[in-house]
Amino acid sequence: MSYNLLKGKKGIIFGALDEKSIAWRTALRCHEEGAQLVLSNAPVALRMGEINNLAEAVKAPVIGADVTNMDDLKKLFEESMKHFGGPIDFVLHSIGMGLNVRKGKHYVEMDYEWNKKTLDISAMSLHRVLRTAWDMDALSEGASVVALTYIAAQRVFPDYNEMADAKALLESVTRSFGYHYGVRKKVRVNTVSQSPTRTTAGSGVKGFDGFINFAEKMSPLGNASADECADYCVTLFSDLTKMVTMQNLFHDGGYSTTGVTGAVIEQMEK
Amino acid sequence: MSYNLLKGKKGIIFGALDEKSIAWRTALRCHEEGAQLVLSNAPVALRMGEINNLAEAVKAPVIGADVTNMDDLKKLFEESMKHFGGPIDFVLHSIGMGLNVRKGKHYVEMDYEWNKKTLDISAMSLHRVLRTAWDMDALSEGASVVALTYIAAQRVFPDYNEMADAKALLESVTRSFGYHYGVRKKVRVNTVSQSPTRTTAGSGVKGFDGFINFAEKMSPLGNASADECADYCVTLFSDLTKMVTMQNLFHDGGYSTTGVTGAVIEQMEK
Amino acid sequence: MSYNLLKGKKGIIFGALDEKSIAWRTALRCHEEGAQLVLSNAPVALRMGEINNLAEAVKAPVIGADVTNMDDLKKLFEESMKHFGGPIDFVLHSIGMGLNVRKGKHYVEMDYEWNKKTLDISAMSLHRVLRTAWDMDALSEGASVVALTYIAAQRVFPDYNEMADAKALLESVTRSFGYHYGVRKKVRVNTVSQSPTRTTAGSGVKGFDGFINFAEKMSPLGNASADECADYCVTLFSDLTKMVTMQNLFHDGGYSTTGVTGAVIEQMEK
Amino acid sequence: MSYNLLKGKKGIIFGALDEKSIAWRTALRCHEEGAQLVLSNAPVALRMGEINNLAEAVKAPVIGADVTNMDDLKKLFEESMKHFGGPIDFVLHSIGMGLNVRKGKHYVEMDYEWNKKTLDISAMSLHRVLRTAWDMDALSEGASVVALTYIAAQRVFPDYNEMADAKALLESVTRSFGYHYGVRKKVRVNTVSQSPTRTTAGSGVKGFDGFINFAEKMSPLGNASADECADYCVTLFSDLTKMVTMQNLFHDGGYSTTGVTGAVIEQMEK
Repeated sequence: MSYNLLKGKKGIIFGALDEKSIAWRTALRCHEEGAQLVLSNAPVALRMGEINNLAEAVKAPVIGADVTNMDDLKKLFEESMKHFGGPIDFVLHSIGMGLNVRKGKHYVEMDYEWNKKTLDISAMSLHRVLRTAWDMDALSEGASVVALTYIAAQRVFPDYNEMADAKALLESVTRSFGYHYGVRKKVRVNTVSQSPTRTTAGSGVKGFDGFINFAEKMSPLGNASADECADYCVTLFSDLTKMVTMQNLFHDGGYSTTGVTGAVIEQMEK
Repeated sequence: MSYNLLKGKKGIIFGALDEKSIAWRTALRCHEEGAQLVLSNAPVALRMGEINNLAEAVKAPVIGADVTNMDDLKKLFEESMKHFGGPIDFVLHSIGMGLNVRKGKHYVEMDYEWNKKTLDISAMSLHRVLRTAWDMDALSEGASVVALTYIAAQRVFPDYNEMADAKALLESVTRSFGYHYGVRKKVRVNTVSQSPTRTTAGSGVKGFDGFINFAEKMSPLGNASADECADYCVTLFSDLTKMVTMQNLFHDGGYSTTGVTGAVIEQMEK
Repeated sequence: MSYNLLKGKKGIIFGALDEKSIAWRTALRCHEEGAQLVLSNAPVALRMGEINNLAEAVKAPVIGADVTNMDDLKKLFEESMKHFGGPIDFVLHSIGMGLNVRKGKHYVEMDYEWNKKTLDISAMSLHRVLRTAWDMDALSEGASVVALTYIAAQRVFPDYNEMADAKALLESVTRSFGYHYGVRKKVRVNTVSQSPTRTTAGSGVKGFDGFINFAEKMSPLGNASADECADYCVTLFSDLTKMVTMQNLFHDGGYSTTGVTGAVIEQMEK
Repeated sequence: MSYNLLKGKKGIIFGALDEKSIAWRTALRCHEEGAQLVLSNAPVALRMGEINNLAEAVKAPVIGADVTNMDDLKKLFEESMKHFGGPIDFVLHSIGMGLNVRKGKHYVEMDYEWNKKTLDISAMSLHRVLRTAWDMDALSEGASVVALTYIAAQRVFPDYNEMADAKALLESVTRSFGYHYGVRKKVRVNTVSQSPTRTTAGSGVKGFDGFINFAEKMSPLGNASADECADYCVTLFSDLTKMVTMQNLFHDGGYSTTGVTGAVIEQMEK
């Protein structure tokens, strides 16, 4: 089903790894809603090759970019603007990588050099993307940027490890850069704080299963799916949300404002 | 311009006083987006007669209801369901009345009986509306309810007076009832925290002009208008936001996450 | 152990029902720290008679007051000032009563007249207390007022029922009146959001046991006790916290910023 | 005046640059309250020599440490424990350095290598300190750690630049490490979010004067001073706040919950 909400809009989607990815689902929905797209991911992720299936489905070029490399980002925006014949209307930042998480280092034992890379890839990359666009004046008036985040930025989920800190940093960059880009060109920058989602990335987190079940029981509407997240992102890219900026928006079936549910209390009594 | 985002949906809009009202603008936008509507307001407000112009424009019946009267609400929902031939898909609660504000009583000198009415009309009315629907099972699966609020629920704006407390109560009812209706029928209940808006209701607040200018200077995107708020409500009533619930959503051009702006600092140095 | 933190200070403690009450424990600690006290509670609670044991221990008069009755409050402050020979330096508001809760009415079926009383007793009573003091200029420069609240004001705990809304209202009154009294006389007004506590009042809430266990497992430090809460209130009444105002302060062993713990995940996997 | 609140306690104070520093004032107050101290600062700051005056006043050794160097931190904790003859009871982290700020780089033009150092010095340094203590089991049961932060972590103050992001990261580390250390040894970790303060460090921020005046006018109690912050830290290091952890505590005269004041509105009308 399509409403043509993004008809004529041009967007860059970062982070579509495979068909379970939120970025993948969002690309599909944006295409359905009439947007033209460019897909980007890290060179190492592109080598898996799955993204080509998506590229075909949404008729979009794939342009690799290491988001910690300013030359790569510059090239990405240049080629995207050339492809579109004009500026970018929306960007999805679905990028995260916890080096200590991946290598099984506990939070209190983190390797600080790995952590620097984690913060750079997962959080400062949003700054790098926005700053590249800023320098090239690559975003259109009132453009919309969404970065995906997680409630671990507000409350501790022990196994989420250093990614909690990365997400808190990401949300701060969202506000800080959102301010400047808002003043300059009415660009909106927001984060969507999504339910835990069974993506290939999410599954890497230790204790993910116990945890996703807990979130499901703790959410009045249950956990939000990747497809539902894609729908929500579409509204944020559309012209109907032009005054929403510098916000962290929970898309989580009510989890964030639920203290406890009957289902959880029952489980506690077992 | 229409996307048919609300095609086939049926909604009740409370609080359209005159063409400056957010509820009025929202009714127009919902109609454009394909929704069928029922308009409701307090009997005393209906007597002004302006709402009939809106009713004609959006082809909707007007059904008066005192939102503190359960019989009125029951009748409203019964007649609405009869009119629509089925359940309600969305509700806009744009209702507020500060009796002490209106009568010029300072916050520290409030009349407590008036305050009880303020809280009942402005906050518990949302409970009354939801509970009426609950008892009659009048909302469809996944229906969406939005109530308008203001950031005075989180931070003090002295002239806003008792309405700050009323809005804090309203936001709590949103979460509390949102939980139960979410568990039962996936109904979403949210508040939209809108920029100060030059409506007939808003203008009643003392010091409103100095204040709206402050908010304008303090918002990276400027204050959000009633029409922009209407657009945002449309997204929340649509099927694209089915997992957003129990949230307070700022629609304010970035005001809520801005500590200070260059424009304000300049003014402070005068 | 005493630090003489409240030496020479004069305070009114509302809500000491029996020795499990937080107000009771706080009265004991304030006395140890050198404060002079007046104890107050609702006439109906006084009839239980237990408070006389406390009165003796802390050498304080007991002055009954229905906190929804302005004459009672005026009399209380008049007699207190007479007793102390001067103004009041601190106030503990530990007052709450959910009529619908007590009578077993589910949130969605509340009796609205009972709810008005709930809100008046549990939340607007803070306004009434502060306003009585305001009219009589009964608080000293930089006086400190603390009201006890619960995290249900931010997140839904279904069995907490209408008290969640009452606490949200209480916290708003704290900010609103705190603003005015701060500007006028540097009076501080804060809420302390305490762990669920096995008091006689707390035990009235349905599902309290399952819930207190959940909170215990969910708090890195475990639930805070009534005695620990008393200690914390002492710091807030002291001269060491003169610039803390209009805040909601969590005293909960870290519960409020913990998303999940190992202990809870384990339980979920059973 | 002393209450002996910290009698017998042993603490490390980071960041006392000169007599205007919050860390300096806190060291004085902790000493008055009976604590034994070790002072630490970056080798480059020590070279200024002023800290020796403080060291003499509070009878504390000065041990230099680059907080991004794990060997330095290990040596600091080893020597401190040797000096005290036992574990550490409290730590004040008053450390921040914005390299881009200092070199006049606007937020949107930041040097990313400098920013990595900013984040390491200003935020991850808290992790490094706690982790050093963790590895050596250097903190006593129920020890208290306080880091100073600023509301720019929640709302944008444009001139605060990259330090906003650093403070958001610092607050996240506070929660994350606070969780683990709480579970292990009931250690409390909190941030105090202080009013803008005319310290030598604060004065480096562009537009600081206009801004501190704005904050003064925007706070019902005015801006909190360094001495008042020291008082507040004393309460957090004491045994009276043992269940407060993983919190961000505003010490700001009510600024954070004030939307606007009469004084600001007046200024806006000029």
